[in-house]
Amino acid sequence: MEINLTSDTITKPTPEMLNYMLKARVGDDVYKQDGSTNELEHTVAELFGMEAALFFPSGTMANQVAIKLHTQPGDQLICERSSHINQYEAGGPAFHSGVSCGVIDGNRGRITAEQVLDMYTDASNFHYPISTLVCLENTTNKGGGACYELSEIERIRAVCDEKGMKLHLDGARLWNALVAKAQHPTHFGKLFDTISVCFSKGLGAPVGSALIGSKADIQKAMRLRKLMGGAMRQTGYLAAAALYALKNNVSRLQSDHLRARQLEVALNKKSWIAEVLPVQTNIIIFRLHKNEDIPKFFEKLKQKNISISDMGGGWLRMVTHLDYREVMHDYVCEAIASIEI
Amino acid sequence: MEINLTSDTITKPTPEMLNYMLKARVGDDVYKQDGSTNELEHTVAELFGMEAALFFPSGTMANQVAIKLHTQPGDQLICERSSHINQYEAGGPAFHSGVSCGVIDGNRGRITAEQVLDMYTDASNFHYPISTLVCLENTTNKGGGACYELSEIERIRAVCDEKGMKLHLDGARLWNALVAKAQHPTHFGKLFDTISVCFSKGLGAPVGSALIGSKADIQKAMRLRKLMGGAMRQTGYLAAAALYALKNNVSRLQSDHLRARQLEVALNKKSWIAEVLPVQTNIIIFRLHKNEDIPKFFEKLKQKNISISDMGGGWLRMVTHLDYREVMHDYVCEAIASIEI
Amino acid sequence: MEINLTSDTITKPTPEMLNYMLKARVGDDVYKQDGSTNELEHTVAELFGMEAALFFPSGTMANQVAIKLHTQPGDQLICERSSHINQYEAGGPAFHSGVSCGVIDGNRGRITAEQVLDMYTDASNFHYPISTLVCLENTTNKGGGACYELSEIERIRAVCDEKGMKLHLDGARLWNALVAKAQHPTHFGKLFDTISVCFSKGLGAPVGSALIGSKADIQKAMRLRKLMGGAMRQTGYLAAAALYALKNNVSRLQSDHLRARQLEVALNKKSWIAEVLPVQTNIIIFRLHKNEDIPKFFEKLKQKNISISDMGGGWLRMVTHLDYREVMHDYVCEAIASIEI
Amino acid sequence: MEINLTSDTITKPTPEMLNYMLKARVGDDVYKQDGSTNELEHTVAELFGMEAALFFPSGTMANQVAIKLHTQPGDQLICERSSHINQYEAGGPAFHSGVSCGVIDGNRGRITAEQVLDMYTDASNFHYPISTLVCLENTTNKGGGACYELSEIERIRAVCDEKGMKLHLDGARLWNALVAKAQHPTHFGKLFDTISVCFSKGLGAPVGSALIGSKADIQKAMRLRKLMGGAMRQTGYLAAAALYALKNNVSRLQSDHLRARQLEVALNKKSWIAEVLPVQTNIIIFRLHKNEDIPKFFEKLKQKNISISDMGGGWLRMVTHLDYREVMHDYVCEAIASIEI
Repeated sequence: MEINLTSDTITKPTPEMLNYMLKARVGDDVYKQDGSTNELEHTVAELFGMEAALFFPSGTMANQVAIKLHTQPGDQLICERSSHINQYEAGGPAFHSGVSCGVIDGNRGRITAEQVLDMYTDASNFHYPISTLVCLENTTNKGGGACYELSEIERIRAVCDEKGMKLHLDGARLWNALVAKAQHPTHFGKLFDTISVCFSKGLGAPVGSALIGSKADIQKAMRLRKLMGGAMRQTGYLAAAALYALKNNVSRLQSDHLRARQLEVALNKKSWIAEVLPVQTNIIIFRLHKNEDIPKFFEKLKQKNISISDMGGGWLRMVTHLDYREVMHDYVCEAIASIEI
Repeated sequence: MEINLTSDTITKPTPEMLNYMLKARVGDDVYKQDGSTNELEHTVAELFGMEAALFFPSGTMANQVAIKLHTQPGDQLICERSSHINQYEAGGPAFHSGVSCGVIDGNRGRITAEQVLDMYTDASNFHYPISTLVCLENTTNKGGGACYELSEIERIRAVCDEKGMKLHLDGARLWNALVAKAQHPTHFGKLFDTISVCFSKGLGAPVGSALIGSKADIQKAMRLRKLMGGAMRQTGYLAAAALYALKNNVSRLQSDHLRARQLEVALNKKSWIAEVLPVQTNIIIFRLHKNEDIPKFFEKLKQKNISISDMGGGWLRMVTHLDYREVMHDYVCEAIASIEI
Repeated sequence: MEINLTSDTITKPTPEMLNYMLKARVGDDVYKQDGSTNELEHTVAELFGMEAALFFPSGTMANQVAIKLHTQPGDQLICERSSHINQYEAGGPAFHSGVSCGVIDGNRGRITAEQVLDMYTDASNFHYPISTLVCLENTTNKGGGACYELSEIERIRAVCDEKGMKLHLDGARLWNALVAKAQHPTHFGKLFDTISVCFSKGLGAPVGSALIGSKADIQKAMRLRKLMGGAMRQTGYLAAAALYALKNNVSRLQSDHLRARQLEVALNKKSWIAEVLPVQTNIIIFRLHKNEDIPKFFEKLKQKNISISDMGGGWLRMVTHLDYREVMHDYVCEAIASIEI
Repeated sequence: MEINLTSDTITKPTPEMLNYMLKARVGDDVYKQDGSTNELEHTVAELFGMEAALFFPSGTMANQVAIKLHTQPGDQLICERSSHINQYEAGGPAFHSGVSCGVIDGNRGRITAEQVLDMYTDASNFHYPISTLVCLENTTNKGGGACYELSEIERIRAVCDEKGMKLHLDGARLWNALVAKAQHPTHFGKLFDTISVCFSKGLGAPVGSALIGSKADIQKAMRLRKLMGGAMRQTGYLAAAALYALKNNVSRLQSDHLRARQLEVALNKKSWIAEVLPVQTNIIIFRLHKNEDIPKFFEKLKQKNISISDMGGGWLRMVTHLDYREVMHDYVCEAIASIEI
């Protein structure tokens, strides 16, 4: 039994999902003739109470197109330092949009309205880039799956409105936040100009993300998606998997969260564990007392066929997901209990 | 019976291809753990006698990544005016790579070594962009499926070698050229630095292209694909369809070509046809004596449930493909015979 | 006596101009506190009947900022193939603005309203770049100093208005056109969104160009000039030279034009001359019957201390200017008369 | 008597400098035929013990060209958060070079080798931008004229060498550091790949900066300067002023530094002053106990015809310079002594 806790991106479709994919109604999506893709886009837009949505091959492209939508070359976007957009999209904001990131050192990846206001620069001084966009991430990846309070997002929205900035949400793991916080997608649809969501992480679909927003923005996003090389042909098979996941795999994220909290408890019992970031969703980030023990720890896990991630700087990560089932969980909890370093 | 001759991109997978897709061996392709995608990349690289290949969501992204691989911002790439890269990729060379196109007015989309040499600019004069890349298209789309002679490509390669330029092939319909000219992929693998091929047009797979080249270039292309948002997760389903297509749908392109020539003959018999570009593969480009008759012609086709494309400037296009079957062909030939304008 | 007919950029200030420079009222132009620069900008804007103007270190920067002002990355600008913007600004439109050039093969560098319309592409098809800007050059450099008729520009303006495109004039040698055609700057101010003019070619100032346009555009151009590194400090010395040139060196361009026509006549008398493009201003472009005679011709000129330019493709160029005085002209005319090849 | 302490960029040439400018040997610098500019470039390169130098219209352009020289689009450059390159060049690194800034929160604008190493990212993970360049600023502007120790730069150089990164110095006020620390330009020439220096701040020339580096880099920089629109014609007048400044205005910076320290002492005596950053060169940065007193303070200074800068966040700035003479200094010291808030 191989147990992979490195990421929730590694899940494979179940037979039921595969069967649903087979029945996709396909056509050439470049010309919007793909039935399943059209249904997915319509479903997601409605779920968030927004006007329109567009299917993308990846969340990275959905985010980068959103950035291009809302900015001009030379502008500044404001985001948290460890956010995916700033650190894990290969320098995309500068590459694609000629945009600088005004980075804030936040609290587990979350920023506040005061910090946004502090980082804001306007057009009055020619030396500064103009701040035109704020990007939030919910849940935060490097922040260990931490969630925003809606009230904080409302305060950030107010700053954006006052200053004429747009607000984009990188919702790669938004489904986890919705389940953990018992929030509704429309809460987010009202607060953001655009939202990207991923069907491939917690939801378990093989490929794909969506960008959700106004009709006008999504119309422009279609052109940008073509430009980026993200316009595909018979995407219905991928869209069908996402539709299946939306219907069947959202509420079950509670199990992933429960198991993550149980892993937190198991880790906290160990004398060689220095700290576990309090678990809010499906990500457990922790560190050992001594960084030099990390290789030994990884070796012991490897002997038990368990893979986890090294995030750098002494931080380690485990992520629970659809393919991490009960029997594996029991085994990992026991394994942790038994490891001495 | 709806007959769609607008493009070969509209084909849908057969039950056999779907069945093959179901059996894909998948994993997270971002970490190169997707078995079917790895097999596809290995198969294609070997077919062309090149070192490596990489799967892409679209031919546009494969081409644009190739351009970025071979150029610096401010450089010039040399291509034919009507080429896909210059006219149909939404201004991608300038957007993604900061590169200008030095456009040549060619013969049905094909350019010559002399024309390339004439357009070449080097670094000695600071006023000029530096020419560092030549892009050919084979078969040509807007040139009506025309094919290059290998000897001309060899002469262009010699110019590139002399001047230190790279040579990229947009092979969106290269399979058609191979079949029509009885050429082998290795002929092309030897002449080009990079080649993009499409699995979704003549071959009938739902989604995907590949970029083929040296190990070093494909390694860099992996980073650029991530940056562009083209790194996807469990791509094996799409790759399996491409593998099926490679095994089963290449030699049958001869049928598409035969039918295209028969349509050419049918059109040439009509008094209201001014010109049909001599058919070489699966694209028939023609014009009527009077442009003002085009709406009437389209209306008559529509009554018979036949769709074709208007290329602008009075030129019309029909494309034969996998889903254009014998019974449809007989019907269309009769339809053309019966239409009077 | 060294006679340099390679370009009108090589002129040096006269003692009178230098004296005027010394008296400049200077300040920090980054904060618009430089008196002479402010006066120059005000003078030029008024001369063209436009709202505002901005001083630039070069015409290249003035043109490139204009392109950035009027376009979005991915757009297409329409211009003549041999125009300075397309061929002599080092690939700037793609580098700075991510913009493609839709190049027209014109008549001595001039294009027509029909050609513009033919090259126009709109946003309706996602495959095309969107055409948002037309750039004209007057007089044309590579077209041998040819001038536009105002009526043709009016027709191009009408196409721009109909299609929502902006119209920019690269007026590096506009002063020559104004003198040759007895036109007034306000004719151009009414037809163009932005105009760049150069103080350093025919007018003989050491450094500088201006961009002229609406208040809103020039305000944005100030930010872009800063971004490009073109905001300088005490520019008054350069601006004073330009002011002197505007007052003293415009009408005398007629002498340059007269001498250019006399050189045309002298060349046309020679049996070894194949063609001289009819001279309209201060540029003489011609070719010999045999390209292989060019080195011999240059050698004979060199023996007489005369320098001219090789434009490539067999075309040679002479440019008359402020420092090409009567005694030199007589000498060159005699030299041409005496040369046999 | 108007006293302007807002910046050292506002100085105007003395009659001696103007006289020197008049005697410039000029030519077309685009073709490197300008005698005074060639002399300046040669002089500066030799001074730093580097191979070559190039004159620029501004330090911003010199810095941005250096960034483009050393990076590829998508790369990351490492710098201090408040550095001119990150905060005061209008978003240039992203705009011109497609490069992200990995910003470090330093000590008065200075960073350490450990911080650089911590921020470093390499090509092994496709999610990260690749770090290829470190930029230092000496003296620091927003850090209040603080200087680096050479030993720290040597340690940063070692990190760059180990990781294959280039090292650029924004030396807009390097002359101040050289004088304050009794360092020699060759110390810096040995440690950096490229250095920008400014002739217009402390040195008092009207316009211009230089980029200094290897022959190969400066050759490439010439092309980039043309592309950016920074290639000017008869620049000798500006270069002559810079040559004069190099010969006459460097060692006198000691007076500026002395006066700055005297202003520090004067401020520290006031009860309403909360903090003055210890003065190292010609910049005094300080704050009041109460930010709400700033308008009152500015009003009192205005009544005495004294201008200073508001840096934001409660920080105020005074800069001493060539045009801030003894009589003014006595007056300002008295003024500060007399102000009560």
